Amino acid sequence: VRIAVINPNTTRESTDAVVRSARAVARPGTEIFGITPNFGPESCEGWHDSFVSAAAVIDAVQTTKEPYDALVMAGFGEHGRQALRELVDVPVVDMTEAAVELAYLIGDKYGIITSLARTIPLIEDSLRSSGLLGRCAALLATEIPVLDLDRYPDRTTEAFVAKAQEALDRGADVLILGCGGMSQVRQQIQQRLQAPVVDGVAAAIALAESLHHLGLTTSKVGSYAPPLAKLRTGWPVSGRSIG
Amino acid sequence: VRIAVINPNTTRESTDAVVRSARAVARPGTEIFGITPNFGPESCEGWHDSFVSAAAVIDAVQTTKEPYDALVMAGFGEHGRQALRELVDVPVVDMTEAAVELAYLIGDKYGIITSLARTIPLIEDSLRSSGLLGRCAALLATEIPVLDLDRYPDRTTEAFVAKAQEALDRGADVLILGCGGMSQVRQQIQQRLQAPVVDGVAAAIALAESLHHLGLTTSKVGSYAPPLAKLRTGWPVSGRSIG
Amino acid sequence: VRIAVINPNTTRESTDAVVRSARAVARPGTEIFGITPNFGPESCEGWHDSFVSAAAVIDAVQTTKEPYDALVMAGFGEHGRQALRELVDVPVVDMTEAAVELAYLIGDKYGIITSLARTIPLIEDSLRSSGLLGRCAALLATEIPVLDLDRYPDRTTEAFVAKAQEALDRGADVLILGCGGMSQVRQQIQQRLQAPVVDGVAAAIALAESLHHLGLTTSKVGSYAPPLAKLRTGWPVSGRSIG
Amino acid sequence: VRIAVINPNTTRESTDAVVRSARAVARPGTEIFGITPNFGPESCEGWHDSFVSAAAVIDAVQTTKEPYDALVMAGFGEHGRQALRELVDVPVVDMTEAAVELAYLIGDKYGIITSLARTIPLIEDSLRSSGLLGRCAALLATEIPVLDLDRYPDRTTEAFVAKAQEALDRGADVLILGCGGMSQVRQQIQQRLQAPVVDGVAAAIALAESLHHLGLTTSKVGSYAPPLAKLRTGWPVSGRSIG
Amino acid sequence: VRIAVINPNTTRESTDAVVRSARAVARPGTEIFGITPNFGPESCEGWHDSFVSAAAVIDAVQTTKEPYDALVMAGFGEHGRQALRELVDVPVVDMTEAAVELAYLIGDKYGIITSLARTIPLIEDSLRSSGLLGRCAALLATEIPVLDLDRYPDRTTEAFVAKAQEALDRGADVLILGCGGMSQVRQQIQQRLQAPVVDGVAAAIALAESLHHLGLTTSKVGSYAPPLAKLRTGWPVSGRSIG
Amino acid sequence: VRIAVINPNTTRESTDAVVRSARAVARPGTEIFGITPNFGPESCEGWHDSFVSAAAVIDAVQTTKEPYDALVMAGFGEHGRQALRELVDVPVVDMTEAAVELAYLIGDKYGIITSLARTIPLIEDSLRSSGLLGRCAALLATEIPVLDLDRYPDRTTEAFVAKAQEALDRGADVLILGCGGMSQVRQQIQQRLQAPVVDGVAAAIALAESLHHLGLTTSKVGSYAPPLAKLRTGWPVSGRSIG
Repeated sequence: VRIAVINPNTTRESTDAVVRSARAVARPGTEIFGITPNFGPESCEGWHDSFVSAAAVIDAVQTTKEPYDALVMAGFGEHGRQALRELVDVPVVDMTEAAVELAYLIGDKYGIITSLARTIPLIEDSLRSSGLLGRCAALLATEIPVLDLDRYPDRTTEAFVAKAQEALDRGADVLILGCGGMSQVRQQIQQRLQAPVVDGVAAAIALAESLHHLGLTTSKVGSYAPPLAKLRTGWPVSGRSIG
Repeated sequence: VRIAVINPNTTRESTDAVVRSARAVARPGTEIFGITPNFGPESCEGWHDSFVSAAAVIDAVQTTKEPYDALVMAGFGEHGRQALRELVDVPVVDMTEAAVELAYLIGDKYGIITSLARTIPLIEDSLRSSGLLGRCAALLATEIPVLDLDRYPDRTTEAFVAKAQEALDRGADVLILGCGGMSQVRQQIQQRLQAPVVDGVAAAIALAESLHHLGLTTSKVGSYAPPLAKLRTGWPVSGRSIG
Repeated sequence: VRIAVINPNTTRESTDAVVRSARAVARPGTEIFGITPNFGPESCEGWHDSFVSAAAVIDAVQTTKEPYDALVMAGFGEHGRQALRELVDVPVVDMTEAAVELAYLIGDKYGIITSLARTIPLIEDSLRSSGLLGRCAALLATEIPVLDLDRYPDRTTEAFVAKAQEALDRGADVLILGCGGMSQVRQQIQQRLQAPVVDGVAAAIALAESLHHLGLTTSKVGSYAPPLAKLRTGWPVSGRSIG
Repeated sequence: VRIAVINPNTTRESTDAVVRSARAVARPGTEIFGITPNFGPESCEGWHDSFVSAAAVIDAVQTTKEPYDALVMAGFGEHGRQALRELVDVPVVDMTEAAVELAYLIGDKYGIITSLARTIPLIEDSLRSSGLLGRCAALLATEIPVLDLDRYPDRTTEAFVAKAQEALDRGADVLILGCGGMSQVRQQIQQRLQAPVVDGVAAAIALAESLHHLGLTTSKVGSYAPPLAKLRTGWPVSGRSIG
Repeated sequence: VRIAVINPNTTRESTDAVVRSARAVARPGTEIFGITPNFGPESCEGWHDSFVSAAAVIDAVQTTKEPYDALVMAGFGEHGRQALRELVDVPVVDMTEAAVELAYLIGDKYGIITSLARTIPLIEDSLRSSGLLGRCAALLATEIPVLDLDRYPDRTTEAFVAKAQEALDRGADVLILGCGGMSQVRQQIQQRLQAPVVDGVAAAIALAESLHHLGLTTSKVGSYAPPLAKLRTGWPVSGRSIG
Repeated sequence: VRIAVINPNTTRESTDAVVRSARAVARPGTEIFGITPNFGPESCEGWHDSFVSAAAVIDAVQTTKEPYDALVMAGFGEHGRQALRELVDVPVVDMTEAAVELAYLIGDKYGIITSLARTIPLIEDSLRSSGLLGRCAALLATEIPVLDLDRYPDRTTEAFVAKAQEALDRGADVLILGCGGMSQVRQQIQQRLQAPVVDGVAAAIALAESLHHLGLTTSKVGSYAPPLAKLRTGWPVSGRSIG
């Protein structure tokens, strides 16, 4: 199976990092390649970035010539997954949904720890839309700016561990990190708090492999039927139109 | 007060029509002008079109040089309103929310009649996200293709009146049309079924005027704070970056 | 347009104050007059007062001879709005609903700060009934007795600002004051916390003007059809029967 | 134990009928007497009547000199129960809540059959406010005018049985009649459809007896604390003030 | 009326204690006897114990030869009540549901204080399933091991009073103890916090007596119809099969 | 990876059939073996059977000596999964949850078609408890007795296809069969209605493989911590105690 992983931002290093993470958990026989949008923000931190990213991801999917059997949306809380489900014939797995679905199987309630408080309503919106918000016990932010996450690894780890503990205190028993990377943070939380931490990239790859393996793909009899043929001026931005 | 009305699609005639409707209901002293996106679908009928339109609307707002005091999103169920709320300092009113808010004041439960069944999950998603789905009694589609709406006005009217009656039977006492224009349909429903029909454009203009008049504008202390400064490659598509 | 503003309590000074506030925000051409109930509590602070007030307001509406084009219910969380919608042919706007509807357009989640904790379940009940509780992040009370609100303005302001900050900490980004007057408190919160504060009276006047302007009025095809003709002994208390 | 049953309307025959029904199910040692409001509608069929009735019931409770150990609100869906809970020191049981609580113990989902469709939103509002709407499978109306209920008993019975069957088809397995009396209808439904039918008066008497027997009474530490002392002009209508 | 009270655990002393509590509140003419399961845990503290107990209770009911008119499930949050409703023709009252139903009549929101935090999700699950979770303000645990409850009565009382106060602070105005016995704790909370405390055993007995008195019993037209005849190997464990 | 599949009923042929289905979809390297409970019903059709089955499955898990890396619960809507999560250290996947989780990734709303209407409340209860009921558009029963499913394959297929079409008409775009086997039915629905049908066994195997592959297992820091050590008389029924 060949899985395309779409990075929601234009930072090629992020794409590479997520592809590396994905390959590290992929099963034998799974090939993974990354897609980087042709336009948009270098990182996604808010509604503007989320919606621009959604279109950039759509554009990238529409202009990618590489074939693939499943599509994985990296990023956390970014919008647009339903548009991809309309567009392609292969399964589409959003990392946000994937992480919560696996968390649902191994805990009673989940907690999400993210970097900026301003993205909390976004993540809520994404999960409410998926019907997966009901068992959320806590959605907390460390308020460490993204650029400082790597710069001060120890402070970052302490901040995330502290918020993870707060999530457990509020009733969560499984955790999800609302940011990419952070494998060190994940390890520390698991080790010190003894609670499982679901990695979104890993969850999405496993679910994409599973859907493909079972021959399941997006339903085309409802709202995910292919987009109607029509004039779409200047779209996709990067090339040929779907109209 | 100067209100910019953004059409979600690239059809200039639609922009003109919505501007005409808006002017017809605007108060004395309200100036209205239309914004047409620089790219995107000629009409919005599905998730793909909704998310491309969201970005095109963001792009248009970021590159419009005309000043305005309030922003109205035309279209029904299209995504992206929260991004506009981040971007601008003036009030942003989405026609979808506006229609339901006025319906909430004049009826117990509302019904929405739209053209294609495939857009129903979209409209639900938009209203669930706004917290305004709780008093929806029915969301029904006539399944008349958009292009046939004007071509066969009588059949269109009959189809909408029939679905409006079905919505009343399911408990609605106020109706909303999930498509632009249709003033004849609106009149017929009001006359024959005696139920009020809220016009989204009119509702949005009135709410935008109200917010401006009261000096209320989008909160900047939460998730609608201005987008963070950062590199946004090739964005906006039509010109200068916000980064 | 001529708007009648009904005070839920019998304190004529309150009626005058709310009329002054209403006039201060009304548009040119809007005439406003106040209605004071003929019986009931001098202020509303609890379920008993809310339900007595509801009947007193109904009684006042049934016996008022002055003509008007729209009806605004002052008070916060008081019951009875649906009865008024049955009774009259003009639009009825409850200040509680109006405040939340405008808050929905300018923020992600709202917080309400009120004086007594005992009224919190009442306000919840009113907003749950309206389907407008879903985006409430906090409903907090200062526990300052109503009579002390004006007597110790500085302590009052500090108490409200502190609770407003707590509401922001719990995720609100727009605030509503669940008490009349308090323009100084409103200003201080806006200035010191930078968060918008919606004034219920202003919101209700603007929405009443809007509904009237758009020719929208309460639906009569559902549960707001006129009350059935029947014997209503001793009602209204103040005069002629509607039976 | 001495239970006061308050009729929401001013029809003394209704009070007598409900007292007879109550006595028929009361336990040995239970004394029951009726209270008829001093003003208000002869029957309750809509929001106006419900809210006027709420105040009339409050007035009647405040002016009744007879002692009692528990208070039962007859009527179905009428508002005001929380006000009574503030006012008195004895338990207050609303027939609407009581019927659903017993239904919850003997079935999976309940259906309510009432006479007029216009009262459905009222009943929903009352039960949503009580947190008892979640297991409602159907809320249906026969649309037989109240006065015709007794006049054409056979047609009435057939209409109620038909709607009860429809409720079962929608998933209900226990039924509640949203109108007083109707013992013949109840018997016919139980006999022909084999589904239990909860009688609201009986349920309320049994719950009032139970609360009194267990020494449980309304909490006074929250929003049901006694009304604050204050001036209440012309209230109660029928006599002495509580202020 | 003859009521069988089923203890969810195998500790005969617990059965005796709950029977004593039940008799202390039963009405004249009510006979009560206890049923102790033939297998299972000596106390229930978690999902495993809850589900084993459910089967043990079913087994005990199927093999009990004593006749009875109503069945009361002691325990708090334990599963299985719907199975008993299928099995028997008499009313089945679960103490958990009964406590909340009475709390609903005397307060606005309830709080539950239990011993171990690990049982909180269980109790939530039981009440969500019953549709009775909506008015829960707080579900708190003292984390005092069950065996220490009696051993250190003063510490126990202080811990429960402290958590009860916390529940009131979170908006509860009526309390429920999620453990058997504890009459001293109940008295102390009522005395010191002035809030009513509902005793689950008492509530269940009163509701069982009420259902029996009114001739109401479990509906057999829906999912509580008698179990289908079939082979059930080795079941019940203690004797004759129902197949 | 070695996966144990537990059949909820005692019919060894069912265990064999589900193991065959599981093997047919398992990945290379996955070993699968079946566990048949030592007691309980030959098939599960109702609350009694569901709760007896839960205990029988717990008993079987506690007495199975074969090692395994993940546990899959076959059956649809049966209770008890949380008890298994307490008991074992490996991931536990309930087929009911698994089917809905995959459906969530490939459609907007799902429909479930089952055999007997009496099991609908059970399935609802199981999915509400999992927080996975929100996107259910329809839960329909063919009312074909289980024994007739295989006996009259054509009638069975027609009945299921008809109900599947009804589910699509109510807004579902992906289907789940609430009964084992039925591969012919699944094929016919997919072919004739063009809608994807998720097979619960396949979904559960894929998710169990995925969790194991990612090193994720049940959280032990919350309510799924191992059962407390205590006396559990006569349990497990089939052998050694866990106490």
